[in-house]
Amino acid sequence: MGVAIGDQILDLAAAAALLADLPGEIVQACAAPQLNPLMALGPRASAALRLALSRGLSAERGDQKLRRHLTPMANAELLLPVAIGDFTDFYASVFHATNVGRMLRPENPLVPNYKYVPVAYHSRASSVRVSGTAVKRPQGQRKPANETVPSYGPSRNLDFELELGFYIGVPSDLGTTIPVGKAAEHVFGFCLLNDWSARDVQGWEYQPLGPFLGKNFATTVSPWVVTQEALAPFRVPAFARPQGDPAPLPYLDDPVDRAQGGFDIAVDACLSSEKMRAAGAAPLCITKSSFQTTYWTVAQMVAHHASNGCNLMTGDLFGSGTVSGPEKGSQGCLLEITARGKEPVVLPGGEQRAFIEDGDEIIFRAYAEKPGYPRIGFGECRAVVLPAG
Amino acid sequence: MGVAIGDQILDLAAAAALLADLPGEIVQACAAPQLNPLMALGPRASAALRLALSRGLSAERGDQKLRRHLTPMANAELLLPVAIGDFTDFYASVFHATNVGRMLRPENPLVPNYKYVPVAYHSRASSVRVSGTAVKRPQGQRKPANETVPSYGPSRNLDFELELGFYIGVPSDLGTTIPVGKAAEHVFGFCLLNDWSARDVQGWEYQPLGPFLGKNFATTVSPWVVTQEALAPFRVPAFARPQGDPAPLPYLDDPVDRAQGGFDIAVDACLSSEKMRAAGAAPLCITKSSFQTTYWTVAQMVAHHASNGCNLMTGDLFGSGTVSGPEKGSQGCLLEITARGKEPVVLPGGEQRAFIEDGDEIIFRAYAEKPGYPRIGFGECRAVVLPAG
Repeated sequence: MGVAIGDQILDLAAAAALLADLPGEIVQACAAPQLNPLMALGPRASAALRLALSRGLSAERGDQKLRRHLTPMANAELLLPVAIGDFTDFYASVFHATNVGRMLRPENPLVPNYKYVPVAYHSRASSVRVSGTAVKRPQGQRKPANETVPSYGPSRNLDFELELGFYIGVPSDLGTTIPVGKAAEHVFGFCLLNDWSARDVQGWEYQPLGPFLGKNFATTVSPWVVTQEALAPFRVPAFARPQGDPAPLPYLDDPVDRAQGGFDIAVDACLSSEKMRAAGAAPLCITKSSFQTTYWTVAQMVAHHASNGCNLMTGDLFGSGTVSGPEKGSQGCLLEITARGKEPVVLPGGEQRAFIEDGDEIIFRAYAEKPGYPRIGFGECRAVVLPAG
Repeated sequence: MGVAIGDQILDLAAAAALLADLPGEIVQACAAPQLNPLMALGPRASAALRLALSRGLSAERGDQKLRRHLTPMANAELLLPVAIGDFTDFYASVFHATNVGRMLRPENPLVPNYKYVPVAYHSRASSVRVSGTAVKRPQGQRKPANETVPSYGPSRNLDFELELGFYIGVPSDLGTTIPVGKAAEHVFGFCLLNDWSARDVQGWEYQPLGPFLGKNFATTVSPWVVTQEALAPFRVPAFARPQGDPAPLPYLDDPVDRAQGGFDIAVDACLSSEKMRAAGAAPLCITKSSFQTTYWTVAQMVAHHASNGCNLMTGDLFGSGTVSGPEKGSQGCLLEITARGKEPVVLPGGEQRAFIEDGDEIIFRAYAEKPGYPRIGFGECRAVVLPAG
């Protein structure tokens, strides 16, 4: 495991062993191949580690023994940082839910439960891969409206979904709930997440039990996990529910969460086609959104997940759902950006994109910044799409 | 790990070490705490092990060294036999899908995709427990038709779903498909599975992304896994599609699967209330069904799951979906048996059940039998329901 320090990576096992005041269980957790043992120790342990590393690396102390364990990021191959247990994907952006709902049910875009239930579905853990791993275009059953029977073949409507992910650190027991005011203690940190979606497969299969093969062929996550503590300066009030919306039910309502349950995190998605790369063109940024606009907070998602006694495990991955804002230019997937393909994106060089084509690379970035604080970057979540077959 | 021999359990690690002709990798796999390493070796390895054990235990040879490693089942505590990766639940009974669909959409019970797509959803692996583990009644959001807003509280419509489960042995790689004719080679064996369902929670939450908290509070599986090989004599033709139904798409169609892709396995569910147990009454069998009647075969479910390149992992658990037959008395859940609570089951002693009440124990059994072959029992899958809170 490593800690990102500028454009360097600090070898965490070697560094932790040199930090004299660090409790033994933390040193031991830092020697593991993935983050799970450290995540299980809870937010105090990560805070103690962060403080010890920051002191050890500070210029005044100038600990050369620690600095010897820095490697240039450019020389490193980054791997999946967590052994993922179960993977749950939420639907927390009311703008995404409304935009997508409008395409399916123009008269009634939002289903009646949306403002009461932090809607989610179980997704597939086995096919989560780290940024940089190519994604093969999936095949599946597709039945366009103008055909009477479905056929099996490569998806024609491959899409990305721009999401934040977060990992469960401290587990909960089967049969117990997590009060919304305590939910943040179970969250270790955040990553970028691309919930690749084959819209044609999804559209045909998803009734009545939800998305399945339209989603589970691949999910890409960033290699870096930004701890919740590092994001503390960027906490903001929870999304302000429009007048007339119901209040959250009591088990999802907490004054502290209302006051600071949101995170001011900017997220964006870029596309780079094969032609663009060959011409040396930079990726085209096709959306800029903010995690601040999600209808449900992280704490509400965690509390809801455990509200029936479902046990959460160290290493569980939660996706936020597509982070779409209210304006044009802030929509988190091509389905929304292109209005189901009707308004294609024009790329530098003149190519058009209704959906993702083979050879396209999708790149997500996120950051949090405000005056007086160091900027927090999330690294990248990127993958090239390969042809089916 | 142990092998069931009548009412005894053979210690598999000790026994395998005594079987001289067994390849080293099988002996080693038998020493693991769970079945995963053995499952990963594939059907030939399980067949070799089965043959060696059967020879070793046969009366003619009378190997006393082996017999020394038998323990009475009554003295054993049975644990979860597999480290479960992802858990996928199918919807393979057309009778169940039709019965449930009729309650929600009387004019059009089956959604248009049903006869083309082996519909499934991802479920929750962390809350799968072995038979005998009590299940706490879940709480959740419920909104009965006569209320205008939902409330949070104990489920009022707790149900069971009578299913067979099966475990993936040989894994598949991300980006590769599994031809339906090869799918059986990836299946290690079968168990009983209770997909506990909070119908009120499920009904309110399931649009548009499928069941979530209505299901993931608990799943119970039997401790024994019946290998596919042991069930070979009970293979039957796949369910005969009624005239007018479409043929399966080519990627789900295989002549051998058509001829013998089904399994003649009888499954039944019994209920025993606290009062019945206090009065010494036997559990009441409330349904008798057969796995023969499922619309989709095991091979079709496996091939479909991998048809988009989703990788299957050793230890993945698949549920068949509720096994309901066409007749009254063969319906696999209370929602169907009681017509949504309108026709309660009457228990010995006069109690009535629309749905499951606290203190009720649900017991599943399954077996395969035919003249000239030893009867194959699946053991039991049972659990008592405890009050919420």
